[in-house]
Amino acid sequence: MVEEIVETEGHLIDSRLMTEIFDAVVKHGASFEVMQFAIGRTNNDYSRLQMRVTAPETGIMQDLLEELVAFGCRTAGELDAALQPAPIDGCAPDDFYSTSNHRTWVRHGGRWLEVERQRMDAAIVIEDGRAMCRKLRDLRKGDRVVCFLDGIRVVPEFRERDRHGFAFMTGGISSERHVETSVERIAEMIREVKGSGGRVAFVVGPVVVHTGAASYFCDLIRRGFVDVLLAGNALAVHDIEGALYGTSLGVSLKTGVPVEGGHRHHMRAINAIRRAGGIQPAVASGLLTSGVMYECVKKSVPYVLAGSIRDDGPLPDTIMDLVEAQDRYAEALTDVKIAVVLSTMLHGIGVGNMLPSWVKVVCVDINPSVVTKLVDRGSAQTLGLVTDTGLFVHQLAQKLGGP
Amino acid sequence: MVEEIVETEGHLIDSRLMTEIFDAVVKHGASFEVMQFAIGRTNNDYSRLQMRVTAPETGIMQDLLEELVAFGCRTAGELDAALQPAPIDGCAPDDFYSTSNHRTWVRHGGRWLEVERQRMDAAIVIEDGRAMCRKLRDLRKGDRVVCFLDGIRVVPEFRERDRHGFAFMTGGISSERHVETSVERIAEMIREVKGSGGRVAFVVGPVVVHTGAASYFCDLIRRGFVDVLLAGNALAVHDIEGALYGTSLGVSLKTGVPVEGGHRHHMRAINAIRRAGGIQPAVASGLLTSGVMYECVKKSVPYVLAGSIRDDGPLPDTIMDLVEAQDRYAEALTDVKIAVVLSTMLHGIGVGNMLPSWVKVVCVDINPSVVTKLVDRGSAQTLGLVTDTGLFVHQLAQKLGGP
Amino acid sequence: MVEEIVETEGHLIDSRLMTEIFDAVVKHGASFEVMQFAIGRTNNDYSRLQMRVTAPETGIMQDLLEELVAFGCRTAGELDAALQPAPIDGCAPDDFYSTSNHRTWVRHGGRWLEVERQRMDAAIVIEDGRAMCRKLRDLRKGDRVVCFLDGIRVVPEFRERDRHGFAFMTGGISSERHVETSVERIAEMIREVKGSGGRVAFVVGPVVVHTGAASYFCDLIRRGFVDVLLAGNALAVHDIEGALYGTSLGVSLKTGVPVEGGHRHHMRAINAIRRAGGIQPAVASGLLTSGVMYECVKKSVPYVLAGSIRDDGPLPDTIMDLVEAQDRYAEALTDVKIAVVLSTMLHGIGVGNMLPSWVKVVCVDINPSVVTKLVDRGSAQTLGLVTDTGLFVHQLAQKLGGP
Amino acid sequence: MVEEIVETEGHLIDSRLMTEIFDAVVKHGASFEVMQFAIGRTNNDYSRLQMRVTAPETGIMQDLLEELVAFGCRTAGELDAALQPAPIDGCAPDDFYSTSNHRTWVRHGGRWLEVERQRMDAAIVIEDGRAMCRKLRDLRKGDRVVCFLDGIRVVPEFRERDRHGFAFMTGGISSERHVETSVERIAEMIREVKGSGGRVAFVVGPVVVHTGAASYFCDLIRRGFVDVLLAGNALAVHDIEGALYGTSLGVSLKTGVPVEGGHRHHMRAINAIRRAGGIQPAVASGLLTSGVMYECVKKSVPYVLAGSIRDDGPLPDTIMDLVEAQDRYAEALTDVKIAVVLSTMLHGIGVGNMLPSWVKVVCVDINPSVVTKLVDRGSAQTLGLVTDTGLFVHQLAQKLGGP
Repeated sequence: MVEEIVETEGHLIDSRLMTEIFDAVVKHGASFEVMQFAIGRTNNDYSRLQMRVTAPETGIMQDLLEELVAFGCRTAGELDAALQPAPIDGCAPDDFYSTSNHRTWVRHGGRWLEVERQRMDAAIVIEDGRAMCRKLRDLRKGDRVVCFLDGIRVVPEFRERDRHGFAFMTGGISSERHVETSVERIAEMIREVKGSGGRVAFVVGPVVVHTGAASYFCDLIRRGFVDVLLAGNALAVHDIEGALYGTSLGVSLKTGVPVEGGHRHHMRAINAIRRAGGIQPAVASGLLTSGVMYECVKKSVPYVLAGSIRDDGPLPDTIMDLVEAQDRYAEALTDVKIAVVLSTMLHGIGVGNMLPSWVKVVCVDINPSVVTKLVDRGSAQTLGLVTDTGLFVHQLAQKLGGP
Repeated sequence: MVEEIVETEGHLIDSRLMTEIFDAVVKHGASFEVMQFAIGRTNNDYSRLQMRVTAPETGIMQDLLEELVAFGCRTAGELDAALQPAPIDGCAPDDFYSTSNHRTWVRHGGRWLEVERQRMDAAIVIEDGRAMCRKLRDLRKGDRVVCFLDGIRVVPEFRERDRHGFAFMTGGISSERHVETSVERIAEMIREVKGSGGRVAFVVGPVVVHTGAASYFCDLIRRGFVDVLLAGNALAVHDIEGALYGTSLGVSLKTGVPVEGGHRHHMRAINAIRRAGGIQPAVASGLLTSGVMYECVKKSVPYVLAGSIRDDGPLPDTIMDLVEAQDRYAEALTDVKIAVVLSTMLHGIGVGNMLPSWVKVVCVDINPSVVTKLVDRGSAQTLGLVTDTGLFVHQLAQKLGGP
Repeated sequence: MVEEIVETEGHLIDSRLMTEIFDAVVKHGASFEVMQFAIGRTNNDYSRLQMRVTAPETGIMQDLLEELVAFGCRTAGELDAALQPAPIDGCAPDDFYSTSNHRTWVRHGGRWLEVERQRMDAAIVIEDGRAMCRKLRDLRKGDRVVCFLDGIRVVPEFRERDRHGFAFMTGGISSERHVETSVERIAEMIREVKGSGGRVAFVVGPVVVHTGAASYFCDLIRRGFVDVLLAGNALAVHDIEGALYGTSLGVSLKTGVPVEGGHRHHMRAINAIRRAGGIQPAVASGLLTSGVMYECVKKSVPYVLAGSIRDDGPLPDTIMDLVEAQDRYAEALTDVKIAVVLSTMLHGIGVGNMLPSWVKVVCVDINPSVVTKLVDRGSAQTLGLVTDTGLFVHQLAQKLGGP
Repeated sequence: MVEEIVETEGHLIDSRLMTEIFDAVVKHGASFEVMQFAIGRTNNDYSRLQMRVTAPETGIMQDLLEELVAFGCRTAGELDAALQPAPIDGCAPDDFYSTSNHRTWVRHGGRWLEVERQRMDAAIVIEDGRAMCRKLRDLRKGDRVVCFLDGIRVVPEFRERDRHGFAFMTGGISSERHVETSVERIAEMIREVKGSGGRVAFVVGPVVVHTGAASYFCDLIRRGFVDVLLAGNALAVHDIEGALYGTSLGVSLKTGVPVEGGHRHHMRAINAIRRAGGIQPAVASGLLTSGVMYECVKKSVPYVLAGSIRDDGPLPDTIMDLVEAQDRYAEALTDVKIAVVLSTMLHGIGVGNMLPSWVKVVCVDINPSVVTKLVDRGSAQTLGLVTDTGLFVHQLAQKLGGP
């Protein structure tokens, strides 16, 4: 039997942390005794918990503590974090601490350093008196990597006690919700972010084009609500196909008939842009005169197109080296305060992996499985909305003001 | 080996009937030889087919012919339909002809009678020189019931050769479509039906209330686009709950927070209507002053609420005897030219069973499985749309004109 | 400002009740101050909470208290429950207490009576010194109905602290789970129920027949694992269609080709059973010799078939009067300890409405929306499994032992 | 008005080509007159069609002909294909012919050359008297590229007239099918391919690991049914996580409880393999001793892991340069006669893009939208099965023989 004193504080009850903590103990076959528990007496007070945890053996205690640390617990007693050198390039020491996306502090030289570039699934490196997240592949031999659990403090995002004013969509994914109210609240969140100088990222799948919502999305770009566009090759290809083959797409827009043989059009669109040397030259030369990509170029909205195994072409702008694509995505997300994911599980998860837990993510998809999957990855930060993405973009453009 | 000469005519190729016919033959292990085939030379001409079918044994030939008749084939030679008396009340003779929902003629006394009250899964009874569909349970001992396959002609609804102008949504169920175009076309279809004096039925699930679309649907009622409302207990209960507990629903509409404990509200709503003696008395007494059911009463729109095993209460208006409910539904559907099914698989299938194939059905649901299931039951007549039902109703109200 | 002292005890934290309680207070715009909180020191101890709740006005306090009572809270001070007479047949007094499905006690004459026939959405009647649930429609004028909130104690099912041993499938609906482990645990649960003399109900949709799993389900019946079968008309119709038209279904089983024109077969199956006078006469006469319904008759397993608006026929056994069908379902569920719902949202919700919260419900469907919907209605008692229902039944039959 | 004589032959009716051809004409606002039509008189005969097509203008005729060529039509008169040089590297001439995945012949120097490396969305290059598909990005300046439509013949895969024996799962996606029969037929198809010396590719998502089906899949590898494995980083990571952290996964397998905090395990698994230098070194050194990747190494089954934007790590084996990954996938698919796609839309579409239409694709997923999407891309060649992937793999391993 091994024993450990564990402490934490915060909105333990209404953020459900306390339940999670007790669950974790029981799940690992350990037991606990509450030594001190001071509950917040009112909505605004923190609760404080100190408990004695008993586990049958060291390995289990270690696993359990790892989980408790993620819930904001720390072992009593203040120690510096243990550092070990990365053994080779691209590799952490075996016992490296793998980060969550929550705000984290590391104790070094007796001082608590806030970890920079917080993201999940990274190692923490101490360098020049600063602590920062670094992906495994970016580690260099000899980097001083935080190992084990001493001297680490995680602060899970509290779901605020008044979360009913805020997180209006939490509490399960359902298509049976009052969608228009949700759109209004998302519009408000976007306006607040813009008002406070924050940036808004849109992560967009080709469905936005297929459903005819591209024109509304263009409105959002023109009116300055899109600070960065993250997408794949397909969004740009189908957007440009629409712009270049307007007539046949015009027919289709009139009749609603899916244009069979459209694969020829999208390949010609790709070929045309390849010949032009890319999207920006195509805009500059007057070849491309409308659509989402055109508006981005005109408005100088940065975009990053990440490749995938199913891509045709690709467009010259599409980054097929995914190490570079991930780095470019991450860089583009700097200072983003809210990311709106429209019908793309692939790029949505990619973005979710890169963001710290205090950046809000709004995920819209008609498929509840996609929304559930994205929300499950970070329920405190992700708002899921099961609705028709095309109609959503239309509504959002309306609520944000405009034509 | 048994042999049979089979004939048919119509838009055999572009309605895919010819494919279905050949498939049926091969599937039953029979074979065919085309004796005559005259293809329609232009878009407007019929094709004519005569073929010799060979099957290994009589039973198989019989099964095959049953299927071929449903595709509009007939055996060469003109015979009257065979009639046998119903053996007891509620029962057909063993070899009764079970109807499809396509237009059907029966040969009797040398004349071809068009079958009245066409619907699927019924028997055909000859009475007073007329032929009509009758459900098994409505047969009475001695009714003269059409048996076997002689003297029966079915005319499958041809998908018109210009169906690309009309059936813009056929060709697969998908949520990746240009929804707004589809809504526009549905609005046109409704306007056409109204313009030609036809009636429009809406078959509505409670999601229309849950998603906040009830107010748009009320618009549709007030402006005369709803000639009959078919629904279940739940639609009316949740609509009335909204009307009676406006304040708490008001809070919810403002915040978008699902009101937990709502079960108390809906039970009180039921209790209040039960005490009032029904929906119409509740409107008359001033208890019920808004909502879908209120507008129906005010506008004298007939409604039928069919019970189900999961119903609470029920409301006094809900018909818990389903034999009566089915009869009332069928009666309410007389002269309906288009039925719009909004997020209710149960009542949608119920209605689909009752309608002849020349009444159009539009089926809207966010769940592609529901749309697929409804469309699979009658692909020539059903248009499926995978989208957010709440936003659809909003859009439909806009496209049909109004606030 | 109105104030109330509220108390409760139990596994408040790990059952998440405390979070729910605080949420409810905040959501209603009220506030709380914790007066006493004694946390269970170990896994086995209860926690106790006393708090002062302040609300801006009486109406809000009333709404809030209703919700808190459902979470197991009571106002300090012991009063008898208030009784008011039902004003007319089929109606409760306006302020009747609408039940949840949790175990409930009512204080009457200074004694706490456990409520009998516990189910949700009912009124509580005091009669002959006993308290019992009664549906609105079963109330008779003058029945003494419990009103308001005094003298009511609800005991929410605690999710046990070791729920990780038990409720292995809680924590979200997903198709990405280790299904075979789940089947094993469900098999164990069924064996435990049978071992302790409890009854097992199966609520079954026609998909069990369509997917070819009927033969495995027949095994379960023969081996005594099915104590009651609840279903709709369609299950019985398609099961009997398979039994009577074995040859053509034989073909289909061999080739896997969907038999088109099958509607004729199912109508003939219905007609044959109607002529025989029902399922049991059809078994007695030797007409029906295999299938789910046959096995039920042979094994004297009671079955109830509830009608729906989409039914063909129906079979003579199908109860089309839903008031009677609900009563027969409820009666058949007496002493049932576990209900397994296989691919039927309609009948699954119907059954869910009738069961107290201490009867376990297992819900299996390939559609996550169906599972989510059923689980959302009672997360403490319902285990949801997203998998192929046909393969599930096969696996379950294997794990429960047999051929 | 422009006119053109168009001819074709084949199983025009039962392969639905004739319907598609007439549809295409009408959809483009053109009209047709059938000049000759000789229908196949029996199951085994071809049909032949010659028709005069009239279109309002040249552009429309061109679009229409493009579509008709894809359906196997050709204009009367025999001309060589027009060749134009690629203008720059990575670019085709504007009017290049973009391939379908059907078998294609090109007329060059008066001879018909069968196109090699057939795949969709490519250009056709004539080189050394041979015709071959080449992706846009692989074109080099001066390559002689087939342009326009002359001298091109496409042979759509005919769905055989006895397709009911073969394509047992066509005719719509549904979860209400007899799955076990389908599994049996897929097992047969795999055995046939193996028996004739063909290769079998599996394209596998991580769900196979999450659902506990990895051990059954390992059986398939060991018994030689997997000739090539195509997957992403996640499959390998979670497989290796299972292999390395067996104990904690053992606990999870026993209890079925999702292991929270599992992100630490998968990151350590990645780190361990990175340190080892890759999967094969990890097997060689004895670090990795079980699981899917281990079995591949042991059995020398080639695998290609393609990167994606959401990847953690990645493993050293994962190819993050997608141009290389696509080339490696395509190379690995050489001589593959059947590809089984298990729960991965991303890699499934990627593979679908690379295969000619005569390679069968079986797509298994619990989500009908995924199956529909994959099948829609090539309905003649893709068999879709909506079922639980984990249970499917178990069944498949059983039907193919083994433990």
